[in-house]
Amino acid sequence: MPSYAAPLRDMQFVLHDLLEVSRQDIPGFADLDRDFTAAVIEEAGRVASGVLQPLNAVGDSEGCTLENGVVRTPAGFRAAFDVIREGGWTAVDCDPAYGGQGLPYLIHTAAQEPFVSANMAFNMYQGLTHGAYSAIRLHGTEEQRATYLPRLTTCEWTGTMNLTEPHCGTDLGLMRTRAEPQPDGSFRITGQKIFISAGDHDLSSNIIHLVLARIPGGPEGIKGISLLIVPKILVLPDGSLGARNAVSVGKIERKMGIHGNATCVMNYDGAIGHLLGEPHKGMRAMFTMMNEARLGVGLQGYAQAEAAYQNALAYAAERLQGRDITGPRAPEQAADPIIVHPDIRRSLMDQKSFVEGARALTYWGALLIDRAHRTGDRAADGLISLLTPVIKGFLTDRGFDCTIAAQQVFGGHGYIEEWGMSQFARDARIAMIYEGANGIQALDLVGRKLALDGGRHIMDFFEMIKTFIRENDGDAGLKTDFLDPLKAASKDLQAAAMYFMAEGSKDPHNALAGSTDFLHLMGHVALGFMWARMACAARAALTAGDGDRSFLESKIATGRYYMARQLPATAMHLARIRSGAAPVMALAAANF
Amino acid sequence: MPSYAAPLRDMQFVLHDLLEVSRQDIPGFADLDRDFTAAVIEEAGRVASGVLQPLNAVGDSEGCTLENGVVRTPAGFRAAFDVIREGGWTAVDCDPAYGGQGLPYLIHTAAQEPFVSANMAFNMYQGLTHGAYSAIRLHGTEEQRATYLPRLTTCEWTGTMNLTEPHCGTDLGLMRTRAEPQPDGSFRITGQKIFISAGDHDLSSNIIHLVLARIPGGPEGIKGISLLIVPKILVLPDGSLGARNAVSVGKIERKMGIHGNATCVMNYDGAIGHLLGEPHKGMRAMFTMMNEARLGVGLQGYAQAEAAYQNALAYAAERLQGRDITGPRAPEQAADPIIVHPDIRRSLMDQKSFVEGARALTYWGALLIDRAHRTGDRAADGLISLLTPVIKGFLTDRGFDCTIAAQQVFGGHGYIEEWGMSQFARDARIAMIYEGANGIQALDLVGRKLALDGGRHIMDFFEMIKTFIRENDGDAGLKTDFLDPLKAASKDLQAAAMYFMAEGSKDPHNALAGSTDFLHLMGHVALGFMWARMACAARAALTAGDGDRSFLESKIATGRYYMARQLPATAMHLARIRSGAAPVMALAAANF
Repeated sequence: MPSYAAPLRDMQFVLHDLLEVSRQDIPGFADLDRDFTAAVIEEAGRVASGVLQPLNAVGDSEGCTLENGVVRTPAGFRAAFDVIREGGWTAVDCDPAYGGQGLPYLIHTAAQEPFVSANMAFNMYQGLTHGAYSAIRLHGTEEQRATYLPRLTTCEWTGTMNLTEPHCGTDLGLMRTRAEPQPDGSFRITGQKIFISAGDHDLSSNIIHLVLARIPGGPEGIKGISLLIVPKILVLPDGSLGARNAVSVGKIERKMGIHGNATCVMNYDGAIGHLLGEPHKGMRAMFTMMNEARLGVGLQGYAQAEAAYQNALAYAAERLQGRDITGPRAPEQAADPIIVHPDIRRSLMDQKSFVEGARALTYWGALLIDRAHRTGDRAADGLISLLTPVIKGFLTDRGFDCTIAAQQVFGGHGYIEEWGMSQFARDARIAMIYEGANGIQALDLVGRKLALDGGRHIMDFFEMIKTFIRENDGDAGLKTDFLDPLKAASKDLQAAAMYFMAEGSKDPHNALAGSTDFLHLMGHVALGFMWARMACAARAALTAGDGDRSFLESKIATGRYYMARQLPATAMHLARIRSGAAPVMALAAANF
Repeated sequence: MPSYAAPLRDMQFVLHDLLEVSRQDIPGFADLDRDFTAAVIEEAGRVASGVLQPLNAVGDSEGCTLENGVVRTPAGFRAAFDVIREGGWTAVDCDPAYGGQGLPYLIHTAAQEPFVSANMAFNMYQGLTHGAYSAIRLHGTEEQRATYLPRLTTCEWTGTMNLTEPHCGTDLGLMRTRAEPQPDGSFRITGQKIFISAGDHDLSSNIIHLVLARIPGGPEGIKGISLLIVPKILVLPDGSLGARNAVSVGKIERKMGIHGNATCVMNYDGAIGHLLGEPHKGMRAMFTMMNEARLGVGLQGYAQAEAAYQNALAYAAERLQGRDITGPRAPEQAADPIIVHPDIRRSLMDQKSFVEGARALTYWGALLIDRAHRTGDRAADGLISLLTPVIKGFLTDRGFDCTIAAQQVFGGHGYIEEWGMSQFARDARIAMIYEGANGIQALDLVGRKLALDGGRHIMDFFEMIKTFIRENDGDAGLKTDFLDPLKAASKDLQAAAMYFMAEGSKDPHNALAGSTDFLHLMGHVALGFMWARMACAARAALTAGDGDRSFLESKIATGRYYMARQLPATAMHLARIRSGAAPVMALAAANF
């Protein structure tokens, strides 16, 4: 049975040593001192370890069941959901006007991490509700806000997102679900939606479906999609619950993982709904939530890797097998713990250096979202738009790789379900797919975000790195191990962007054929940047005599590993990118 | 529901254009003309597609069950096993003296590929029997051979390998299972073995367990391990079946994949067994089968990737989503098939170029085994010993990656079990673990095989590549796209080997910290070498006007892709290797 403990020191290090949150000139950040954030994440960690983690395996083996049209969640989920709800964990960054605590999105993000590590499938019920909350808060009428937000904030009601149909996922312009206007201003929604996470369950008294649909007579394609609020149980004018709406669960999908979350086929048969935002502007409403939602999925990627890593580390320290090649380390035992073996260490360091770098990037991304929202900073908004596909795509690709690496540490024991390592990999796998498959993230990055606002945001990113290197150039302790590799990696990224500019204009396939490589190249540069900054922060703390010496030294050593062992990937990605579209597009489809 | 068709043209291309099997001066190879091999693999392909593939999903969803101590395989497995048995597929390369067909191991390998692609879990029942057959044939007494081999050849009886115990997997020196000698020359075996594939089932009338155990009083550690034949049902002197032996199934493991194969905990409670080979020399007996067994696992890696790729390709050609960025390709439809998108093509080409290169390497490896066994060629034996960890480790690591890439092509549909893409990944995952986890393969490669016979075999390998480049240097069509990248990659491999020699002697951790990178580096060089040779062969066939032009041109284009897009990985692996042990070993175990 796996275990999990929130990595509080690492989380605090990112919040305070790296991001210096309480010194940021963002409204609400001054209160975020070490004691305050410690209290929040310690309590989140306690709930995660004590309540959610023990249900992770239960959720996986029991799964959800559909009985007489009603979805039942695994044993213990209802009680645990009450704990989450009553602890206020669903309301951390919600608007105080609707019962929220009004804390920064960054604090919400940090508090969510332990929940996601401990039980990803379970946590999706509140995660999707948070998405519905955001959509209604941004696009709802005063009345809609008043009706829905207080209940979504507490998860008394939960939410879903209904986009995909059997024949259309990425290309939502092909959508067929119809919303017929009624004389009273409401709509009747008819169609089938698939892959609806948390589409039905027994954790809340109502479920608010946000459904993309087409109002007849509107524009063709993606420009004629509207967003509608469709409650499972109709809401009466006084806010109380009325009759069942004409929405039902067709089936629950049997999936590779996240069995504890019901992935439903939803059938809308003339269900009553209300327009959210303007007609035919549904996609715009969906996109306003995208940065947050995708950052949340990136977090899933590294949070699963963190949980898997913790267990791989514990196993490596306990499992006795073979001897250190340079001589026994535990001569009193029949064999040494496998952590003595260099290849096991390599794997653990791969995982550790990824997870800690990924956390830094994610929290920084959350801080940029707060800066954009709370101060209206356009540069921060542009930068997080640029980083979002990297956070989503790179962290879920590499996070999944890490769960596989962690599983591998267990040998055969990793393959049997009893040890729980398979579940981390099976659960983490979905994060590469949903909320825009990673190929779409790469397309978004290379096809849209690079050129956004005249390319200003990628130039800002390069400038930040250059400035950081310049400012720390005199620090001999950083130069060789951190600044030089970062500079080289950043140059590779610039060269790739230059290649796209030069060759992409001749044939856009030259850019798109390298899109996934670019996403990974940029991911490594971003993590390299985080590590250089963390090393710098750790050195400052060491000099000041702040904090635990061995923790800070380990932090620097972990960063050194990332720079030495991971950053060499950037040259490979650049070489692939520069080979252009020709090798990729050479075969006629019939000749594959 | 996924489908599968044996890639006959690709298989024939490797056998005849690349390996020129019928021209090899190896006994038995002269008969292997195109018609002969076509007949064999076409029929194997028919059985695979018609009989085994339809049972793949059944095996996954039903799994095996343990009822009253007896394991039941999924519905349809018994009838399918009869088809395999009656078709003579279990006897292809077995000794005619015991009912085998006496064909080369290469033909066995080629015939197995479709079975493994179609249903890996099912095929393990005969695969393990083949291992037991080989062990008894090489190490058994005349009497043991006469008793067991005819029944193992036909799979009337099946076999298993019993190595692992709860506390010992890689480090078999820790083994506790005892074999107590009896006055009649037999032994009584007592102990528990775990992860025993095909440990029990209902497909054969008897199961012959080969069990590693310790004879009391023998040497400590790995040097005191003996190998014993322990039948499930005792065999009477006339070969008929007697009483049940004292061996029972403790439980069936719940696993990530290969559900159709029963992975058992086996309890030996004073079971009667007979020594196979010499006492205390059991490890040597096990190791003589290793090259074949590990090559077979490497085959599983790419065979699962092949099956997954075929389905990803079919889906990419059918699924309509979005438009080619340079203009609609299927304007008559609502959207273009997703194969028009460069990133989908990149993924398909990654998969295709890996699978075809991997098949070439595996068949070449099988040919080397035939050359070693049939002609006593020591150089061939040394070369396959060197290549074996690469074939096992690289092909299963990358094969698994390809199943994940194939699954990704399906988007959300890849994650639900209905489409079968999850199963390819879950099944392929085990191949990275069993028969020596891939970290152990890397250790074997760097710690043993590189230096074997004074490093002669790796030098032979470099020499073969150099000779090939020299002989084809005048061919402008190969130079830039194939020979130059191969030369660069091979240089990276040599530099890595040099680094190990220079730095490994100072501290062996410097070599072992780079072992997995070296395995992958060498894998890329080996596949690059295969592709350069295949391109050369395809160009020769084009010049001669032999074969299908568009097939041959596609072969070259696929090779070009591998060289341009995959070989740049060698420089990355070299850079990682050269960073040495320091970053890997920096942290004290307590500071992770």
